[in-house]
Amino acid sequence: MSEAGTRVSRRRLFGLAGAGAALAGAGVAGGMAADRVVPAASTTDTAANAVPFHGANQAGIVTPAQDRLHFVSFDVTTTSRNDLVDLLREWTRAAERMAAGQEATEHGAVGGPAEAPPEDTGEALGLPASSLTLTVGFGPSLFDQRFGLADRRPPALIDLPAFAKDALDPARCGGDLCVQACANDPQVAVHAIRNLARIGFGAVTVRWSQLGFGRTSTTSRSQSTPRNLFGFKDGTNNIKAEDTDALRQHVWVQPGDGPDWMTGGSYLVARRIRMHIETWDRTRLSEQEEIIGRQKGSGAAHGQAGEFDPVDLHVHGEGGKPLIADDAHIRLASAESLGGVRILRRGYNFVDGSDGLGHLDAGLFFIAFNRDPRSQFVPMQQALAEKDAMMEYIQHTGSAIYACPPGVRPGGFWGDTLFH
Amino acid sequence: MSEAGTRVSRRRLFGLAGAGAALAGAGVAGGMAADRVVPAASTTDTAANAVPFHGANQAGIVTPAQDRLHFVSFDVTTTSRNDLVDLLREWTRAAERMAAGQEATEHGAVGGPAEAPPEDTGEALGLPASSLTLTVGFGPSLFDQRFGLADRRPPALIDLPAFAKDALDPARCGGDLCVQACANDPQVAVHAIRNLARIGFGAVTVRWSQLGFGRTSTTSRSQSTPRNLFGFKDGTNNIKAEDTDALRQHVWVQPGDGPDWMTGGSYLVARRIRMHIETWDRTRLSEQEEIIGRQKGSGAAHGQAGEFDPVDLHVHGEGGKPLIADDAHIRLASAESLGGVRILRRGYNFVDGSDGLGHLDAGLFFIAFNRDPRSQFVPMQQALAEKDAMMEYIQHTGSAIYACPPGVRPGGFWGDTLFH
Repeated sequence: MSEAGTRVSRRRLFGLAGAGAALAGAGVAGGMAADRVVPAASTTDTAANAVPFHGANQAGIVTPAQDRLHFVSFDVTTTSRNDLVDLLREWTRAAERMAAGQEATEHGAVGGPAEAPPEDTGEALGLPASSLTLTVGFGPSLFDQRFGLADRRPPALIDLPAFAKDALDPARCGGDLCVQACANDPQVAVHAIRNLARIGFGAVTVRWSQLGFGRTSTTSRSQSTPRNLFGFKDGTNNIKAEDTDALRQHVWVQPGDGPDWMTGGSYLVARRIRMHIETWDRTRLSEQEEIIGRQKGSGAAHGQAGEFDPVDLHVHGEGGKPLIADDAHIRLASAESLGGVRILRRGYNFVDGSDGLGHLDAGLFFIAFNRDPRSQFVPMQQALAEKDAMMEYIQHTGSAIYACPPGVRPGGFWGDTLFH
Repeated sequence: MSEAGTRVSRRRLFGLAGAGAALAGAGVAGGMAADRVVPAASTTDTAANAVPFHGANQAGIVTPAQDRLHFVSFDVTTTSRNDLVDLLREWTRAAERMAAGQEATEHGAVGGPAEAPPEDTGEALGLPASSLTLTVGFGPSLFDQRFGLADRRPPALIDLPAFAKDALDPARCGGDLCVQACANDPQVAVHAIRNLARIGFGAVTVRWSQLGFGRTSTTSRSQSTPRNLFGFKDGTNNIKAEDTDALRQHVWVQPGDGPDWMTGGSYLVARRIRMHIETWDRTRLSEQEEIIGRQKGSGAAHGQAGEFDPVDLHVHGEGGKPLIADDAHIRLASAESLGGVRILRRGYNFVDGSDGLGHLDAGLFFIAFNRDPRSQFVPMQQALAEKDAMMEYIQHTGSAIYACPPGVRPGGFWGDTLFH
């Protein structure tokens, strides 16, 4: 599996064709190297490193969560299976290069013929790899009649049921394909999505896309826990990259789970959760803490002293009242309440301008990876949608599910196990 | 003037009430310091430093451009002049604190009574000052009959004229007040705007807001030139913080320019410029470079070798054709073509999801500071809107103008020269 920071990224100065270019087989044209370029000053910055693209699983799932997100959902407009496979091949080559801090193609933004459109859009020239990961997923609609994939659809790739209080905007739901770009520099994440969209001209169109600026989940013990826009630490009890057994049990599709092509993959559920932050901000601190089940400052669960002290749902206070309320978020979302169910969360905060009614359009773009959403995300969300005290302050406005295939071997391509 | 990195920010560990709290007069409640909290590991990171809030001019204008933007335009809903002044006072106290890396108020997110709403929304707990600057401006509509300010409106604070090819969305235009938050961490910028909105409940509502993720302008010679979403370096010839004479001539309102209350201020023009990046990306490199007037790789103007070589608009190539085309962007926007006019640009790239038509909704949120927009931004934009070859690839979808008052002295408040 991929891990950030384990590898020195390929950093070179502008116009200097060194080992990196040779390694990648990149051409040099017009005196400019075709891979990207980095100020020498950043060489001590581990956040700038490259995350390996290849592996048994896709990067960007248990990779320590980068700071920024650009998530895109595409509609496939071609009806040719061959065109779709060609696109996935071409995307994979570009993704390999961009994850290494290179331009999308060998010629790049300025190395091709002047009489042709550039093969890279150029806005990431000079920026390091920034721990970019690109993770692809296939939506249920890809398995319709167009591409001969109907009998390859995994039973776990369900159409998500309607949940209580859903307020979904169809323009923010679904899609044939998704790409999750995570990086420590938003310009690098945006550049990657845009160049995949450019490569896909004529075969795919952007259905919806979402930027996220602050990760809300901790996917490695090397990371401190960030805060969501309710101001609370988020992700304290998330599954971590170091929890190999839990990943096997809850995240990675295992042999025999369904079609073989998904073994080593995972199911991604995305939910755009609008937070009514103005209402929340007028709620008293004690009520906020009761809703969450944790203390706002330290992040400790009620009845505990420290953020990482194990949660005890059975502690009672005065009068026998449970310290963690029956409708507290952490109680309802706990493995204990859900018969052992856990998910790997990987969400980001967002602010999408204003809502036209005097408020910020802000919230959490929730991303979760599941081994099987039928027994993980779905029962968890059913419990939360029906009982969670937090529901008064949030609305689910977007929803999608995708099957993320296993990782790519050198020479392979995204989804090759599905199409072969 | 404010400069980032000239001052060590006040960084303290969680729960440790040290010199920082005493310095700021911050209270300590429930064992928690009321100012924010930073991991000790970040102490060598200059991007985390605090920018001084007070000065003769507002910070955030010639401050070296931070990486991230949250810009908000407010409508004032109270009709009481006293309430408006009280709000500006309260905002100023909060802005002083947040710029120093503290919570919005003394009590902060968790230091107040549990039975009251928190006085800070909490999502920036643990984050350093991140060079946050907050810059306020007053729109033309603030000078209507509501607040007795009609005779204080500066003649330079015009209603912007319609420009050729404008495609303005009224929901992204105008507003009584603006706040520009710039920081090196988007969560810090968003936190600041959100807490000002929280403080303003009942007196202001959010009219529109815009996030920007990549600065496109260089406002100090200490910075390298970033790239916009056309993939070109942007801001090479911008006025720089070091150009004191040019700032006096083109940016800061001088005594005698108009009403005294604006002396030391500047006029901010904001334009949301949608870029049709999909069309641009299908344009050949030579045409892109002809439209801009510069080489995409190096950023050198045509006829020059290096990015910072002075532009020569009179160089001709074969057949006497000018190397920089008559309708090239840098020719039309040049001081030479505009009779000496210059502006200070401070824009950011944006991607606001998708446009519902299969494309990313991406572009440049243009911000410019002028001593007098009547003789600077307006003639420049008239020339560009009518002749710039780039107009084929862009659309101006939002527009606003604000009078940014001079800087605040300790004990003063935003706009005190206007209201006194």
